Amino acid sequence: MTDFTPQNPDYARVVAESFARQGLMQGLGIALAEVAPGRCVLVAGHHPGLLQQHGYFHGALIGAMLDCAGGYAAYSLMPPQSEVLTTEYKVNFLAAAEGERLIVRGTVVKPGRTLTVATAEAFCLRDGEERLCAVMLQSLIRLPAKEPAA
Amino acid sequence: MTDFTPQNPDYARVVAESFARQGLMQGLGIALAEVAPGRCVLVAGHHPGLLQQHGYFHGALIGAMLDCAGGYAAYSLMPPQSEVLTTEYKVNFLAAAEGERLIVRGTVVKPGRTLTVATAEAFCLRDGEERLCAVMLQSLIRLPAKEPAA
Amino acid sequence: MTDFTPQNPDYARVVAESFARQGLMQGLGIALAEVAPGRCVLVAGHHPGLLQQHGYFHGALIGAMLDCAGGYAAYSLMPPQSEVLTTEYKVNFLAAAEGERLIVRGTVVKPGRTLTVATAEAFCLRDGEERLCAVMLQSLIRLPAKEPAA
Amino acid sequence: MTDFTPQNPDYARVVAESFARQGLMQGLGIALAEVAPGRCVLVAGHHPGLLQQHGYFHGALIGAMLDCAGGYAAYSLMPPQSEVLTTEYKVNFLAAAEGERLIVRGTVVKPGRTLTVATAEAFCLRDGEERLCAVMLQSLIRLPAKEPAA
Repeated sequence: MTDFTPQNPDYARVVAESFARQGLMQGLGIALAEVAPGRCVLVAGHHPGLLQQHGYFHGALIGAMLDCAGGYAAYSLMPPQSEVLTTEYKVNFLAAAEGERLIVRGTVVKPGRTLTVATAEAFCLRDGEERLCAVMLQSLIRLPAKEPAA
Repeated sequence: MTDFTPQNPDYARVVAESFARQGLMQGLGIALAEVAPGRCVLVAGHHPGLLQQHGYFHGALIGAMLDCAGGYAAYSLMPPQSEVLTTEYKVNFLAAAEGERLIVRGTVVKPGRTLTVATAEAFCLRDGEERLCAVMLQSLIRLPAKEPAA
Repeated sequence: MTDFTPQNPDYARVVAESFARQGLMQGLGIALAEVAPGRCVLVAGHHPGLLQQHGYFHGALIGAMLDCAGGYAAYSLMPPQSEVLTTEYKVNFLAAAEGERLIVRGTVVKPGRTLTVATAEAFCLRDGEERLCAVMLQSLIRLPAKEPAA
Repeated sequence: MTDFTPQNPDYARVVAESFARQGLMQGLGIALAEVAPGRCVLVAGHHPGLLQQHGYFHGALIGAMLDCAGGYAAYSLMPPQSEVLTTEYKVNFLAAAEGERLIVRGTVVKPGRTLTVATAEAFCLRDGEERLCAVMLQSLIRLPAKEPAA
């Protein structure tokens, strides 16, 4: 796995603050479990609002978490006063997402001044064992931050 | 636009019942606005739990609705006693999703006995005008239904 | 279908000249059949070097033509002194590509100053009838041209 | 990296024979450099018919090789009397493909009875150093072989 050097020494705080402002992630009870340069881990517990009709984690939830995990992995490598936007992503579902927790790990494949490419993997934790249930490939664009840092 | 003939005369009820069992869609307050053979429309209103950090509809919500709209468009063409699963999808985001409502239209591109390909478009309704904000391309697989029809 | 206004009045010549410099397209005998603002059509005839092991058009050829058709559709809307690069694309194959000719039509979904999103469809012509065999969704980036216009 | 057990003890011959029948790959001078269970490596040298207008390897060539490398990686794990078809793939381009050789490595992410998911990476060899220039994510379907084993 590649080691990346962050351009913003304060990257962990910046990622955490942005994550905290996301109504959707908060409403779904998703936790930001870890941030490192070029990496991000999100975790969801098992509750009815996250499931599909058979009691598995909903594919749409998995897609949402993959997108966010890749996005914050990318954001962690951007210079101060940046915004990050997903321009596109693609998810392949590999197995039914059955388990007690959903753990999603995002990783930067290639950082860039304008475009960053990231990947993410979703694992179901079941009886203490992790099983890969989805993979994602994604493009993100860096924009200058709109708001004053006030 | 292609006209499709449903294999299940009861397709509208089957889609509505499956949608009603999806905890995630219910929890987010997303409505199934329309089902026709090979087509499905989902609608979300504007409330904080659906937004990202700038007050726009969250990309992850858009991805989730695109996935579901394409999935139910595909499901509407499947024979009785079928289940539908997304095997993969890809989303391109085109514009900031600003507006009062998010309207997502799914359409089947090619139905198949095993695999179906669908597409979906997300529109923001703002001041009475719709604006395309994301497009999706998706594969779905048909599985025999697990449960008894009891 | 949207009507686009080209920023470069000379777009047709610029596209044709760029296409003519592509060794791969020339070597495969692919023709640029049509260029319009935001649109491009490529055509391939049936010969052994374009086929896979069952005598159908090779999926990799279809992917290549979809990529190029979308790329030149995007390029036709860019200002003078631009270069275009595909940043990513996704293809879904819908049917075996059997026929006398392969006709690929690229169309811009959303032009942008930096990123453009395009789509393309591949049709097989067989016994005088066109059949959709693949669809593509793609992102392209505009770069300032490197070479002098000499 | 996962270790896979082939279901066909003769997988290497089967892959090589299928590859040899592909008119497109032969015409482009692409070599099958390696096959292992769940893995496949393709290599292209530098010649004008493989380049785009700036002298780099053509993106369409890279897409074609990524598709094939993933496809044969998947095929190596299928039982005897199988055919493999790509149902969809997605490529992200990361860097200009400049170099003396293009080396493309396909790997299975998840084999399946019907659908297999694979990934592939394209590297440019330049001055003795490999540089990642594109990544791919792909779905493949297994079909029963059409031809008699004669």
